[in-house]
Amino acid sequence: MDFAYSPKVQELRERVQAFMDAHVYPAEKVFYQQVAEGNRWQPTAIVEELKAKARAEGLWNLFLPDSELGFGLTNLEYAPLAEIMGSSGLGPEAFNCSAPDTGNMEVLVRYGSEAQKRQWLQPLLAGEIRSCFGMTEPGVASSDATNMQARAVREGDEWVINGRKWWTSGANDPRCKIMIFMGLTNPEAPRHAQHSMILVPMDAPGVTVLRHLPVFGYDDAPHGHAEVLLENVRVPYENVLLGEGRGFEIAQGRLGPGRIHHCMRSIGVAERALKMMCERSVARTAFGKPLARLGGNLDHIADSRIEINMARLLTLNAAHMMDTVGNKVAASEIAQIKVVAPNVALKVIDRAIQMHGGAGVSDDFPLAYWYAGQRTLRLADGPDEVHRASIGKHELGKYVPRELLRGH
Amino acid sequence: MDFAYSPKVQELRERVQAFMDAHVYPAEKVFYQQVAEGNRWQPTAIVEELKAKARAEGLWNLFLPDSELGFGLTNLEYAPLAEIMGSSGLGPEAFNCSAPDTGNMEVLVRYGSEAQKRQWLQPLLAGEIRSCFGMTEPGVASSDATNMQARAVREGDEWVINGRKWWTSGANDPRCKIMIFMGLTNPEAPRHAQHSMILVPMDAPGVTVLRHLPVFGYDDAPHGHAEVLLENVRVPYENVLLGEGRGFEIAQGRLGPGRIHHCMRSIGVAERALKMMCERSVARTAFGKPLARLGGNLDHIADSRIEINMARLLTLNAAHMMDTVGNKVAASEIAQIKVVAPNVALKVIDRAIQMHGGAGVSDDFPLAYWYAGQRTLRLADGPDEVHRASIGKHELGKYVPRELLRGH
Amino acid sequence: MDFAYSPKVQELRERVQAFMDAHVYPAEKVFYQQVAEGNRWQPTAIVEELKAKARAEGLWNLFLPDSELGFGLTNLEYAPLAEIMGSSGLGPEAFNCSAPDTGNMEVLVRYGSEAQKRQWLQPLLAGEIRSCFGMTEPGVASSDATNMQARAVREGDEWVINGRKWWTSGANDPRCKIMIFMGLTNPEAPRHAQHSMILVPMDAPGVTVLRHLPVFGYDDAPHGHAEVLLENVRVPYENVLLGEGRGFEIAQGRLGPGRIHHCMRSIGVAERALKMMCERSVARTAFGKPLARLGGNLDHIADSRIEINMARLLTLNAAHMMDTVGNKVAASEIAQIKVVAPNVALKVIDRAIQMHGGAGVSDDFPLAYWYAGQRTLRLADGPDEVHRASIGKHELGKYVPRELLRGH
Amino acid sequence: MDFAYSPKVQELRERVQAFMDAHVYPAEKVFYQQVAEGNRWQPTAIVEELKAKARAEGLWNLFLPDSELGFGLTNLEYAPLAEIMGSSGLGPEAFNCSAPDTGNMEVLVRYGSEAQKRQWLQPLLAGEIRSCFGMTEPGVASSDATNMQARAVREGDEWVINGRKWWTSGANDPRCKIMIFMGLTNPEAPRHAQHSMILVPMDAPGVTVLRHLPVFGYDDAPHGHAEVLLENVRVPYENVLLGEGRGFEIAQGRLGPGRIHHCMRSIGVAERALKMMCERSVARTAFGKPLARLGGNLDHIADSRIEINMARLLTLNAAHMMDTVGNKVAASEIAQIKVVAPNVALKVIDRAIQMHGGAGVSDDFPLAYWYAGQRTLRLADGPDEVHRASIGKHELGKYVPRELLRGH
Repeated sequence: MDFAYSPKVQELRERVQAFMDAHVYPAEKVFYQQVAEGNRWQPTAIVEELKAKARAEGLWNLFLPDSELGFGLTNLEYAPLAEIMGSSGLGPEAFNCSAPDTGNMEVLVRYGSEAQKRQWLQPLLAGEIRSCFGMTEPGVASSDATNMQARAVREGDEWVINGRKWWTSGANDPRCKIMIFMGLTNPEAPRHAQHSMILVPMDAPGVTVLRHLPVFGYDDAPHGHAEVLLENVRVPYENVLLGEGRGFEIAQGRLGPGRIHHCMRSIGVAERALKMMCERSVARTAFGKPLARLGGNLDHIADSRIEINMARLLTLNAAHMMDTVGNKVAASEIAQIKVVAPNVALKVIDRAIQMHGGAGVSDDFPLAYWYAGQRTLRLADGPDEVHRASIGKHELGKYVPRELLRGH
Repeated sequence: MDFAYSPKVQELRERVQAFMDAHVYPAEKVFYQQVAEGNRWQPTAIVEELKAKARAEGLWNLFLPDSELGFGLTNLEYAPLAEIMGSSGLGPEAFNCSAPDTGNMEVLVRYGSEAQKRQWLQPLLAGEIRSCFGMTEPGVASSDATNMQARAVREGDEWVINGRKWWTSGANDPRCKIMIFMGLTNPEAPRHAQHSMILVPMDAPGVTVLRHLPVFGYDDAPHGHAEVLLENVRVPYENVLLGEGRGFEIAQGRLGPGRIHHCMRSIGVAERALKMMCERSVARTAFGKPLARLGGNLDHIADSRIEINMARLLTLNAAHMMDTVGNKVAASEIAQIKVVAPNVALKVIDRAIQMHGGAGVSDDFPLAYWYAGQRTLRLADGPDEVHRASIGKHELGKYVPRELLRGH
Repeated sequence: MDFAYSPKVQELRERVQAFMDAHVYPAEKVFYQQVAEGNRWQPTAIVEELKAKARAEGLWNLFLPDSELGFGLTNLEYAPLAEIMGSSGLGPEAFNCSAPDTGNMEVLVRYGSEAQKRQWLQPLLAGEIRSCFGMTEPGVASSDATNMQARAVREGDEWVINGRKWWTSGANDPRCKIMIFMGLTNPEAPRHAQHSMILVPMDAPGVTVLRHLPVFGYDDAPHGHAEVLLENVRVPYENVLLGEGRGFEIAQGRLGPGRIHHCMRSIGVAERALKMMCERSVARTAFGKPLARLGGNLDHIADSRIEINMARLLTLNAAHMMDTVGNKVAASEIAQIKVVAPNVALKVIDRAIQMHGGAGVSDDFPLAYWYAGQRTLRLADGPDEVHRASIGKHELGKYVPRELLRGH
Repeated sequence: MDFAYSPKVQELRERVQAFMDAHVYPAEKVFYQQVAEGNRWQPTAIVEELKAKARAEGLWNLFLPDSELGFGLTNLEYAPLAEIMGSSGLGPEAFNCSAPDTGNMEVLVRYGSEAQKRQWLQPLLAGEIRSCFGMTEPGVASSDATNMQARAVREGDEWVINGRKWWTSGANDPRCKIMIFMGLTNPEAPRHAQHSMILVPMDAPGVTVLRHLPVFGYDDAPHGHAEVLLENVRVPYENVLLGEGRGFEIAQGRLGPGRIHHCMRSIGVAERALKMMCERSVARTAFGKPLARLGGNLDHIADSRIEINMARLLTLNAAHMMDTVGNKVAASEIAQIKVVAPNVALKVIDRAIQMHGGAGVSDDFPLAYWYAGQRTLRLADGPDEVHRASIGKHELGKYVPRELLRGH
């Protein structure tokens, strides 16, 4: 047992942090200006500049466990880098490490044909195009993923796809060229073998981005979250990944590392919010004292430090388990960090908002925006409630056969 | 001791609720369309229609304790009506009972000269103009109101005003014609006698609305929250209300009832969020059961019901004390509801968001918007922390002399 | 709506409080000495003296809604008196208002025959004997009361009773002469009509008090909580109250007012804990300041004040509803206070313990003892969880038919 | 970074766990019987038997970082063993690893003269005598340790000691032969150099154990917590450890590892409480379902699992820092686990109590007893509040000079 980062990781942490300090944090204001001034739904020049710089510095595709294409980092090694990148909304994309592309690239690396890799993976790895993941649907409770109703029906050599997806992040971005669609293909199969993942080009006839979905008033432009209609969309049969009915099998693998990434980014945001809270608490004075010396403010800082440290350790341990015993054995640990990381981030950000007064809820600081983003993560791949249920069942499984715990 | 609403209040509650059902709730979608389609910062036709209807039905200026101009209701009588009106963002204005106009009208009724009443109170009572309240400042910790630094200096028969205010709600609205400005006039006086309230017409030279301040990404158009610059603004000396250095004296009176109103509106919002949570929990199905039957969801509903009931009773009791023993004796009780009401609303809304999944954070439901609004109330006239400190000191004051508790 | 106590209640409050100040609080130390020095399981002289004094002052049987035998107070009128009495462990018995006797006396008033009243009610009203209530059982989850398995079988003119009860408070007391036993008599009947209440004299052959059950190490002597074995106990058939299978019907009525009493006593304890916390916080100094001025201590005091006020109002409102619309309509409100009152008391006491340091967990102050007592109330007539479920279902019942919410 | 236990630690964990399973857990009932049946304040035969067995198996003095006398384990290596031992109240003493002896032995190893080691350390290492630590005092707020007022005055070759200590754990035990007394010796020195630690034999004239202090009704016999009077106690001058005025210097070192031990034991208790909660939740049925399937019970299990995992990782990381960068640099991390570990244990135990119903607060299960024990740990070497303040200041120290944060 050793809690120190390895020299390799430590060196990468320093390089990534130096890049953030030199380039990414200073770019934040520029980014919001460019979004506000131009067409909100067009990519910004500043992000393209950041990408070019990061690529030039060799800080690119750090997430990829495949060492030929990426850095070959384990989850445990990548996690502390994701934390640092996540401390700015611009960080992940700058390093070509942003969701949902990272998950989609991993799927393509593992399950794509050579042709598919050439067509979609190469430009994704190069940061030339972006992608989206079509899973959640407006008409059903998506907390139960087996509720998904969008249909793909085989007709000869093609799939004919009909349905409606939403919270399809990034679909609004004109660079988004490909969707990994998940839908019902085999309704007669057992519950977790009815759905498949299929590659759907965004310019396929019948694909319509209906609208963007705001989050607490933020549109997240130019990335955004879309509602997408699929009407008689036809794609080649071979666009199905891994095989018919194996959608959940891919999802398990895809969402595991993706969630570690999300959690570490949450922690990065929480760290930065704590830093802002501390700085504000010594910079502002009320009743003749710095805010830090008033009432329970010091306690709020202490609690934030404690909660962040615990969330980080829990997440790193989950990463370690994924690396050593695999996602399936680590299922409870992964579910645990899904519950913990965004909730901790929300608590810390909320306290930081309070320390900033009215400025905290405005756009003069990124706190309210972060709050909105973290709040969605309590829902994004399954609500807290579903994760808690699965952790609880896993725990009980030590004492009774799992069959007795079926259902909710 | 009698917890039943009086027949008079009960009848008014039914009339106000009927108006909400018939006119206000159905107008919400129309309102958002009109704001989205036109110039966001222009008043909407739909709200003017609602105002005309409410006035025609005699449901107008219900808030005014003065029975000649308004309904002559006590705080305890008005509170349950504010709750109902507050259950929609459009409710308060429809009945000409919206902040900050209500507080400003009360100030004018009590302290305005006949000329001032004619010029500003009459059109406010008629819903023809709106007003704003210039208190919070960007450069200082406003949790300590004595920090206010905007200056008004007497020069002959005039005040010359310089300073910067923000979170000046409604200043962006073109109908906003008058600001009640609070600023430093007597810096040599004791701490709570240094500031005065002065009427400043919004079209006075030197008054500039610099920008609107978003709240969690929402601009609250067309009302909004502004940052306002005052540069060498000159107004007649008699525009000072009540007298030099008496700003805090007015604020005490102004903010007491205003806060009861805010708190009851928070409760109205919480009730509606609970209703939505219940409806969603029986309408959606996951894992073969309605959401209401899964895990701790029923507990969340129960806790929400309990917390709302307690917050309402606490607020009504505070209103009762204000009516019977006065704002000063009721200071702790008023501070208590300031802490409780928005925090309860936030908890209930957050649970309702969770029950709605992704839809909960989007604009398809008003939940995220309500969350943002309630979140600002934890700061709006003093942060929770300041209220808690004052409640704590009040409690200790039963055991030791207040002098020993000075400072924070 | 009027939050002031009526003159009648106010006068009684003052008399009861004066009695507490003059006689009960000073008796506490004496009581513990007498228990420690003598046989722990014998009544103390000091309590008998208190009873004599209270009776002489006409403060006796205040709880009885029947005005011939008692004071004829409504629940709303009695509640504030129960609060004051409950602020000392000796208070309720001093006024002959202590559980479980109060509930048992109410049952006898309503359902007892004249002979039963003569035999049991008269000496209970006179404070000459005590009683117990045999409901909870060790072998089953008592959160579901229909689990009760102790059997009473009719044989001719007699009931033959077998079973095991525990948490039978007061059964250890030698003055305890009568048990109201609840058990299974009609196993074939519908779920809530299978059980009956039967009067069982404690000296009936076959009744054995097996042991006393400590609560967090406290034995609560000489009252205590017993495990009682009933082996072939024979009592006359007419000892059944109200009728066969009507046990739950009685329980509903019995436990409603009883719980209001418990809740108000919890609030009385919480008030006294808050008082102790305040006094300690100004009496002790650390780091050069009174504890009250350190960190978040003032916040803890403020939160305690808020929570107590809310719990009291919620309980008084529930009492009002019981008086005006009846226990059945008030079922959700009664369940709400069952959740709130002990939990609030626990939070306040816990903070008071923390302010007292090591002294707080010892017997030098009554805080830890109160904590133990309040903790049991989260279980005593149904755990929090069961009450929350019933509140949640009641809330959902506004939107869907109750049948859809059956089961848990 | 590697979260796996080393093979050495893993092997020791298995041996210790096997000993607990085979000998310690089964001894618990016996222990309580022996205490209840004999003189409560005499050592029990069963514990002596356990000690002999553990010593025979070579599982003895595991805590000692000195590898000649003990196992030479680092804090990180010892921590997981302390967790397992701590899962039973009998565990630590069985392995001669119980407080306060462990801390006292470490002090003697480092600062004792050869004669002192012969006289006190040898029999302590052999488990033949026990010791106590005289720090906390009844008359002052011990949260500020500099408040300590017991005096030791030098007279020639002797110290003359006067004062009163309480919460002196173990002083009631007849085997307790030596106290490490901490008191005021140099009142004119700077604040943290006024106190010294002095060895005081318990049989020295003038040492009187006044009474035992119960914790929530438990006397913790035969160990217990004593109030000790020291009246003109005379001991040789050389009994002062390390040197005059260096008491706090020793305390820093003594309490660091000690607290890691306490925290890991808290986690051990929490784990066992979770196990009991799980087992009960599947063994009992209400409303036709096992408790685990009702309402939010599964969530309570999940939250417990999450909180325990986080507390363990935080504690292990603090141990790692103590080993690698030292107690001083790890000060914030040590303070963090002091806050977290007992609070997590309390939450888990409380949920377990709730799942057990009335049995949970009685002595049929150890839950209420554990609750009482963990509750004292929120006070035992400094209340939560003091630790939070120090964590908060440490965090702010990253942004402003520490001098600005002096005082509270």
